[in-house]
Amino acid sequence: MAVFTTVRTQEQSGYRETNARMEELVKDIPGYLGMDHAQTPGGLGITVGYFRDADALTQWRSNAEHREAQRRGRAAWYRNYTLHVAKVERSHGFVRTEDPVA
Amino acid sequence: MAVFTTVRTQEQSGYRETNARMEELVKDIPGYLGMDHAQTPGGLGITVGYFRDADALTQWRSNAEHREAQRRGRAAWYRNYTLHVAKVERSHGFVRTEDPVA
Repeated sequence: MAVFTTVRTQEQSGYRETNARMEELVKDIPGYLGMDHAQTPGGLGITVGYFRDADALTQWRSNAEHREAQRRGRAAWYRNYTLHVAKVERSHGFVRTEDPVA
Repeated sequence: MAVFTTVRTQEQSGYRETNARMEELVKDIPGYLGMDHAQTPGGLGITVGYFRDADALTQWRSNAEHREAQRRGRAAWYRNYTLHVAKVERSHGFVRTEDPVA
């Protein structure tokens, strides 16, 4: 799992297109399992990428087009970011099956 | 690290107050290191909680007031959620020191 936490700058030209391209490109990585993203308007963005194993993540890190996008991110789009690579130890989920009760 | 991904229901009475209380309460857990949160309006919320070790996270999981908040979350506030507990293997960060270049 890779957790990428970002604060962006005012300079966002090209960001949206590149981001959309990366979302397509990563799907070609064997072992890529999906991603979740949340963005507080004007604030923090968090992207969680799920990968089967370290090899899959290494492939994504070393992709040439992705590396160029990272370079542009540091040059222009990100004020700051943090990346945590972590091994999932356990997971659980909940899906509602009834109407909420207050 | 605990990564908590949520989609909420329309029934949010009491959520804000409980959430604020949890943010205060978790600070008392020895080994709690901080949290990041991002919320797409009307969409996904992601909270990343950082803990020094598994013991710290176990303490937080077993806190009585937290457990009651979790119960209310399942009863009313969350449409669905996923929790991943993961061990951070490596991290890196970037902080801008120059004006962005396009």
